[in-house]
Amino acid sequence: MNEIAGDIHLIVVMEKGSTEAQIAAIIEQLEKNNLKGELSRGVERAVIGVIGENITDDLRAGVAAMSGVGDVLRVSKPYKRASREFKAEDTVVHVKGVKIGGGADPVVMAGPCTIESEEQVVETAHRVKAAGAKILRGGAFKPRTSPYSFRGFEEEGLKLIKTASQETGLPIVTEVMSVRDVELVSRYADILQIGTRSAQNFMLLDEVGMLDKPVLLKRGYAATYEDWLLSAEYILAGGNTNVILCERGVRTFETYTRNTLDVAAMPVIHRLSHLPVIADPSHGTGHWHLVVPLSVASIAAGADGLLVEVHPNPDQALCDGPQSVTFENFELLMDGVNAVTEVGLRNRVPMRAQPVLAGV
Amino acid sequence: MNEIAGDIHLIVVMEKGSTEAQIAAIIEQLEKNNLKGELSRGVERAVIGVIGENITDDLRAGVAAMSGVGDVLRVSKPYKRASREFKAEDTVVHVKGVKIGGGADPVVMAGPCTIESEEQVVETAHRVKAAGAKILRGGAFKPRTSPYSFRGFEEEGLKLIKTASQETGLPIVTEVMSVRDVELVSRYADILQIGTRSAQNFMLLDEVGMLDKPVLLKRGYAATYEDWLLSAEYILAGGNTNVILCERGVRTFETYTRNTLDVAAMPVIHRLSHLPVIADPSHGTGHWHLVVPLSVASIAAGADGLLVEVHPNPDQALCDGPQSVTFENFELLMDGVNAVTEVGLRNRVPMRAQPVLAGV
Amino acid sequence: MNEIAGDIHLIVVMEKGSTEAQIAAIIEQLEKNNLKGELSRGVERAVIGVIGENITDDLRAGVAAMSGVGDVLRVSKPYKRASREFKAEDTVVHVKGVKIGGGADPVVMAGPCTIESEEQVVETAHRVKAAGAKILRGGAFKPRTSPYSFRGFEEEGLKLIKTASQETGLPIVTEVMSVRDVELVSRYADILQIGTRSAQNFMLLDEVGMLDKPVLLKRGYAATYEDWLLSAEYILAGGNTNVILCERGVRTFETYTRNTLDVAAMPVIHRLSHLPVIADPSHGTGHWHLVVPLSVASIAAGADGLLVEVHPNPDQALCDGPQSVTFENFELLMDGVNAVTEVGLRNRVPMRAQPVLAGV
Amino acid sequence: MNEIAGDIHLIVVMEKGSTEAQIAAIIEQLEKNNLKGELSRGVERAVIGVIGENITDDLRAGVAAMSGVGDVLRVSKPYKRASREFKAEDTVVHVKGVKIGGGADPVVMAGPCTIESEEQVVETAHRVKAAGAKILRGGAFKPRTSPYSFRGFEEEGLKLIKTASQETGLPIVTEVMSVRDVELVSRYADILQIGTRSAQNFMLLDEVGMLDKPVLLKRGYAATYEDWLLSAEYILAGGNTNVILCERGVRTFETYTRNTLDVAAMPVIHRLSHLPVIADPSHGTGHWHLVVPLSVASIAAGADGLLVEVHPNPDQALCDGPQSVTFENFELLMDGVNAVTEVGLRNRVPMRAQPVLAGV
Repeated sequence: MNEIAGDIHLIVVMEKGSTEAQIAAIIEQLEKNNLKGELSRGVERAVIGVIGENITDDLRAGVAAMSGVGDVLRVSKPYKRASREFKAEDTVVHVKGVKIGGGADPVVMAGPCTIESEEQVVETAHRVKAAGAKILRGGAFKPRTSPYSFRGFEEEGLKLIKTASQETGLPIVTEVMSVRDVELVSRYADILQIGTRSAQNFMLLDEVGMLDKPVLLKRGYAATYEDWLLSAEYILAGGNTNVILCERGVRTFETYTRNTLDVAAMPVIHRLSHLPVIADPSHGTGHWHLVVPLSVASIAAGADGLLVEVHPNPDQALCDGPQSVTFENFELLMDGVNAVTEVGLRNRVPMRAQPVLAGV
Repeated sequence: MNEIAGDIHLIVVMEKGSTEAQIAAIIEQLEKNNLKGELSRGVERAVIGVIGENITDDLRAGVAAMSGVGDVLRVSKPYKRASREFKAEDTVVHVKGVKIGGGADPVVMAGPCTIESEEQVVETAHRVKAAGAKILRGGAFKPRTSPYSFRGFEEEGLKLIKTASQETGLPIVTEVMSVRDVELVSRYADILQIGTRSAQNFMLLDEVGMLDKPVLLKRGYAATYEDWLLSAEYILAGGNTNVILCERGVRTFETYTRNTLDVAAMPVIHRLSHLPVIADPSHGTGHWHLVVPLSVASIAAGADGLLVEVHPNPDQALCDGPQSVTFENFELLMDGVNAVTEVGLRNRVPMRAQPVLAGV
Repeated sequence: MNEIAGDIHLIVVMEKGSTEAQIAAIIEQLEKNNLKGELSRGVERAVIGVIGENITDDLRAGVAAMSGVGDVLRVSKPYKRASREFKAEDTVVHVKGVKIGGGADPVVMAGPCTIESEEQVVETAHRVKAAGAKILRGGAFKPRTSPYSFRGFEEEGLKLIKTASQETGLPIVTEVMSVRDVELVSRYADILQIGTRSAQNFMLLDEVGMLDKPVLLKRGYAATYEDWLLSAEYILAGGNTNVILCERGVRTFETYTRNTLDVAAMPVIHRLSHLPVIADPSHGTGHWHLVVPLSVASIAAGADGLLVEVHPNPDQALCDGPQSVTFENFELLMDGVNAVTEVGLRNRVPMRAQPVLAGV
Repeated sequence: MNEIAGDIHLIVVMEKGSTEAQIAAIIEQLEKNNLKGELSRGVERAVIGVIGENITDDLRAGVAAMSGVGDVLRVSKPYKRASREFKAEDTVVHVKGVKIGGGADPVVMAGPCTIESEEQVVETAHRVKAAGAKILRGGAFKPRTSPYSFRGFEEEGLKLIKTASQETGLPIVTEVMSVRDVELVSRYADILQIGTRSAQNFMLLDEVGMLDKPVLLKRGYAATYEDWLLSAEYILAGGNTNVILCERGVRTFETYTRNTLDVAAMPVIHRLSHLPVIADPSHGTGHWHLVVPLSVASIAAGADGLLVEVHPNPDQALCDGPQSVTFENFELLMDGVNAVTEVGLRNRVPMRAQPVLAGV
């Protein structure tokens, strides 16, 4: 047994036939960076455990580029503040009296994809509130794949959703797309949404990390869990701990659905992180008729909430009609969510940090 | 308006600037194949609707290869017998008194990845039956990525699972990997499982299509819904209509989970096809601690059943230990499945052919 | 035959059993948007061709959301200015006397991932110039997955690369990450690079679209060709026609390479678009030992240039060491590129708008 | 420094807070399997190096399932006989005087997707031979996604390609889909092709591993390099060392191309393995106009050969018309391949086991 004054964070696997000089060069490089290399010399292959603090990804990459190195394996996670190891208890985000995370009842955020008119957003707000939604969603700045698509009413839209919020008392979640608009959107929003295409817009993450307003961070559509938690880490590292993660589907080879909603993200994130995680079955599927079953499934898998597109007349919507549900279908959706919640599924099948029974 | 004596199955989109001769050649090629081409000549681009019976994919490809053709779009689906349009009512597969599909209570199939010993499989059979499983699973022929992994006890294993089946009355589902073993495995199995790596082993599909024994057809790990339903079509075309589809996760860029379980497959398949569909959260996630939440989620999304790996001592398993659940966790799983079933979720949120409310 | 006063842009495929009322509602909706619907009523299924100008994706989505609609197929491309149909001849981008595109000799852009010191960037500039590079690359603003990685020297870095540029006469390509920095980076850069994580930062695309400075637009790591060309369309629609596309690998299930370099993007882009396209084999593979063969392969496939990371001592690099090549290997790379160019491969095997022989 | 009597093959990373009992249980489990566990106990986390012979993936999985284990990292590769470490020098496969691999001139295998008639296959054989092909390809057993597609003439087709082979002297490569047909196909074929959908048909791999006839093993369309080499390992472990690997594109989110041809597979395989590797740009792209540039690119990246679909009249082909090249385009293709070969690119830019210059 080998008692180590520190912890091994990386394992450097040398190639077969690597030389003494190559090994010495690596040890020296580590020492220059105030790290210690624990060498295990096998019959055919040497392995070096790297011990120390603050091992950046750049240092890992530098070692990986050295002569004689076959591979560098990571033992510890590259994110810290976002990890369950850093903070064991669930983070609960509070938004005007609504609690998100920590085993609270699921919070449904609903509303139109795009804010189109006062009538549309106010009517929708009343209807989704009546059905049980706790937060009002609606877009004023819209990221669109094509420059010829409608891109939102910007501040005019924010004013309209503010009206709907004041009439119903529902807090607002809305997207901010650019560092330039953070201040403006913050004046209206109760939760700032970072969309999937901005999930690695690091300057924007820095910017919202300096606020104390809650941030809803969507998963990039080709982001691993690790990428996603590293994006959250940007915000947390800036000092803003009010981060809500949102799974919205990832891009796969399947084209029938707009994306593949990764329902496993709910229990995975609860295991890796203390942050709340919700699901967006609208973008996650792209079809209204899949939104209800995937909403209920996400809640059953432990989601702390949902983000759902609802529209009075989806076929007249300026954006995302095919994935918006009608008021009637939204009521069905809430009925399903409530059924899962009332039956105590979330307590009967524990889904958080220590899921299921210990010891396998 | 244009009344057509038939239906348009393909749309041939000509390139801008295509010539009269190119268009004529296509029309002629269609006519040689007893098809009719409806030409719409626009200002810049001509479009040809193709009408007729039995338009194979080969014919489509031949047209796509012709000079002047920009694209060929398919209007109708390439599978027939597997489609909801072919048969509107749900197929119910009967296995020794157990009904799978058609809105029946979800059927849980459980047991060890690999049959290891009489004691192991018999004990597991008793325990999963007591917890509510209706079918016993267990592998005697195991497809393994590495030739150095354990590949199953073959007929010896089949005899052991037969014993467990006789003691408990649970019917057997087990995998067949090769045309050579279909006859042998059929003597023991109540349901023949076609694994993900055999999902496009067309000769094997042909072979089981000639039996009348139920077939559990896993989705290929990189198969689209269409590929999967075309594999089912092989079996149905052979005359065997007892096909159960099984979603088991698809390969994505995410490596934390073994695969990404596509929970949306449940309502999608129910919309596209009349066949029952179940979920395999064991292979779908690769981690025992994700199996319970994803099982419940799949049922909540409308799955007709589950296929779950259960082992008395997962850390001693000869195969797939990390994704096998203990007896205790399997009981939790069944508790969750029952909760979702009892609360009537599947009726409250209709998830089948006409999901949710009509008219959006 | 059906003579049409316009062109069919969409095909609306009705579900089997759709009603007269549903069809009428769609025709009416189209007419409200100044479009014409050409109805073809088959025995089982109706199909509507949509004719008119300016059919946005929103309108398509709205129709897809209507009752009775099975699918909406697109006949024409969603991008215009970026398309070969819009402009038949190759766009050539001129940068201080260097020509990129249009069949000119391939232009190699080389330099360090990150600008680290005057000595590093000046030495590298001299060496890559001597080997045949025509443009100097180097990052001052670095998008990093982890907030703990080095993020570049910002304006200080820009000053250092400017020095190297002035000493060697090589024009500069460097990344801009935010609308906030466009003005600053433009003062130093000859080509503004939009990175893969910014490829759908639409506000940034708008911003650089208003300049007349050349833009190197990387493909998003999960962007289809269509997504990528739509991102280019943002810049073109703003009036800036000096866009160079850069393939840098896409995310797949394979993890040995950092990304999968899509070499087919070269001839595909040349067919779909008039814009020049180059390859980035450094990010495309993530391993220095793959950079040389993939550079040569990309040129052989028709790339108009390369973007390559070169570092005096890759194992000491502050960023991306494993994928940086040494000066010696860069010389080998240029030798390979020159060999392919000199042998006249690009003329012997025509790879542009009308690749290979006409008529299949 | 730690001298080890053996080599570390796995690293067991314990969770933070794992107990003495958990660690002891793992060490005991390893010893039961004749393995040794080297424990490094850090401040927060223990790490165990696993030393010994014959560590199967099953054992790895069993340990991963044990209580207190966070992760199990692999230090050594799971394949042996296929690895460059097992055999340093290139394998050269000899087929009736044609040498494939080991730096020999690239070998082009060409012919129709499907054998349709004596006239078609004989004419094609003469033409591709005249242009420089060394092996004749042609399918008699065709794996087809749809059961309604043409599935080949089976033995009748084999007889026709035999005639073409006898007339031209070109050896034959043709696919075998089932253990049942190995004996039959072997009577006609000089190289047995295992298709992408059979790449993990392990019983078929076992079967061809017992022959001494060369096997062309396509990469599964969602197989990692490791999966692919493990499939090769099945054949090598059976005693057949005449394996040629064939990259034919992988499935990605991009749908414009049929698959994404992974050109990097050429140098990657040359680094990881001693086996020859060729490219199939026909299936790798799905479009005839991409076949020429991708053929040349693959050769430039170090491919040992090509597999190309050629047809006298692609628009009349019974299969894969859009990706088949005409005789004229095949001549262009050979011209490009020859240009790359003649210019000595493969020697000027070394692309094999020790690619490029040593020491980064």
